[in-house]
Amino acid sequence: MSSQPHKPTPAKFPTAHGSDRELRADARRNREQVLRTAQQLFATEGLGVSLDEIARRAGVGPGTVHRHFPSKEALYLAVAIDQIEQLVAEAETLAATDDPAALFTLLSRMMANGAENAAVKSALSAAEFDLRTAAPSVAADLTRHVTDLLDRAHAAGAVRHDLAAEELMALVAGAFAAIRHAGAEASPQRSAHIARLILDGLRPQPR
Amino acid sequence: MSSQPHKPTPAKFPTAHGSDRELRADARRNREQVLRTAQQLFATEGLGVSLDEIARRAGVGPGTVHRHFPSKEALYLAVAIDQIEQLVAEAETLAATDDPAALFTLLSRMMANGAENAAVKSALSAAEFDLRTAAPSVAADLTRHVTDLLDRAHAAGAVRHDLAAEELMALVAGAFAAIRHAGAEASPQRSAHIARLILDGLRPQPR
Repeated sequence: MSSQPHKPTPAKFPTAHGSDRELRADARRNREQVLRTAQQLFATEGLGVSLDEIARRAGVGPGTVHRHFPSKEALYLAVAIDQIEQLVAEAETLAATDDPAALFTLLSRMMANGAENAAVKSALSAAEFDLRTAAPSVAADLTRHVTDLLDRAHAAGAVRHDLAAEELMALVAGAFAAIRHAGAEASPQRSAHIARLILDGLRPQPR
Repeated sequence: MSSQPHKPTPAKFPTAHGSDRELRADARRNREQVLRTAQQLFATEGLGVSLDEIARRAGVGPGTVHRHFPSKEALYLAVAIDQIEQLVAEAETLAATDDPAALFTLLSRMMANGAENAAVKSALSAAEFDLRTAAPSVAADLTRHVTDLLDRAHAAGAVRHDLAAEELMALVAGAFAAIRHAGAEASPQRSAHIARLILDGLRPQPR
């Protein structure tokens, strides 16, 4: 490269054919397409799937994947963070309602999502990486929503009085372990039932 | 050794000073003392503790430990099986009562025991070894008692109707994961509360 100092460096994006805004939108769509494809392939085929195969299935060039995600670990982490951001968005929607039991809906979604998605499970149960380190603001958003929804449920008497915020994430991790132990990860119906057993224990108790 | 063919092989036990029955009782007491000591040391100091240290704290010679347990792994497994045998004994006592909620007492004991004892946790959650392979009859006894107590609880309406036997051990494993995630392993009070949250979800539900 240094032997051709006058040759212009090729643009990483073909800026000649669109506005910056369009290109940014295009790059964002590509990135999202890679994330969705990777999420599905990690779930169905595990971590053995290659970055090139993910690019092929996403319908983008290998360079596009490598540009956004320098390693499979980086892509795996990005998938997890992307999924947690979707949970945060769901939490925001739930927070905007006045449903006193919205906490149960959110916890149920977290358990279902993690049961079928190893990256989400890792992120929520701090198993392979700690979301608070990897994406502090996303982790903080999720924690804040869970705590707010718990406060609302407490105020409405929709949850047992002796339930603490720090126990909630522990029970989510517990649900993942129970679902895995039962071999129910591939059955949304069976994993939902185990989640329901655990969530029902959090409702106000007659005793 | 082969140069002294006429010298009698030393007896491994000093048979000159007691009846066979006394000696067997003595060996059994030593074995149990080693198991108790190992269980406590594994719990407080982890697997790093040496067999010789276990012998010293148990008040027996190193040879006694090595004779009963050829490796630390063998001792760890024996500790786990010993603890599960105690749970089976508790289950037998509970089965002899007519308490319809005896199942909850047994599950609560399993969760408490595993929370403070890594070997028990491994055995009950099939984490490091599978009890069904390592000690099939003990595993079968425990499974049979859990199933019988669940049947009794179902018949008495003491448990939710949609709870299956195979979900129970999954929930025990889930409780261990939740307790660990909450960092509550060193607090019997906090781990008991998490266990209670999970067990309350198994009671008959009003909804």
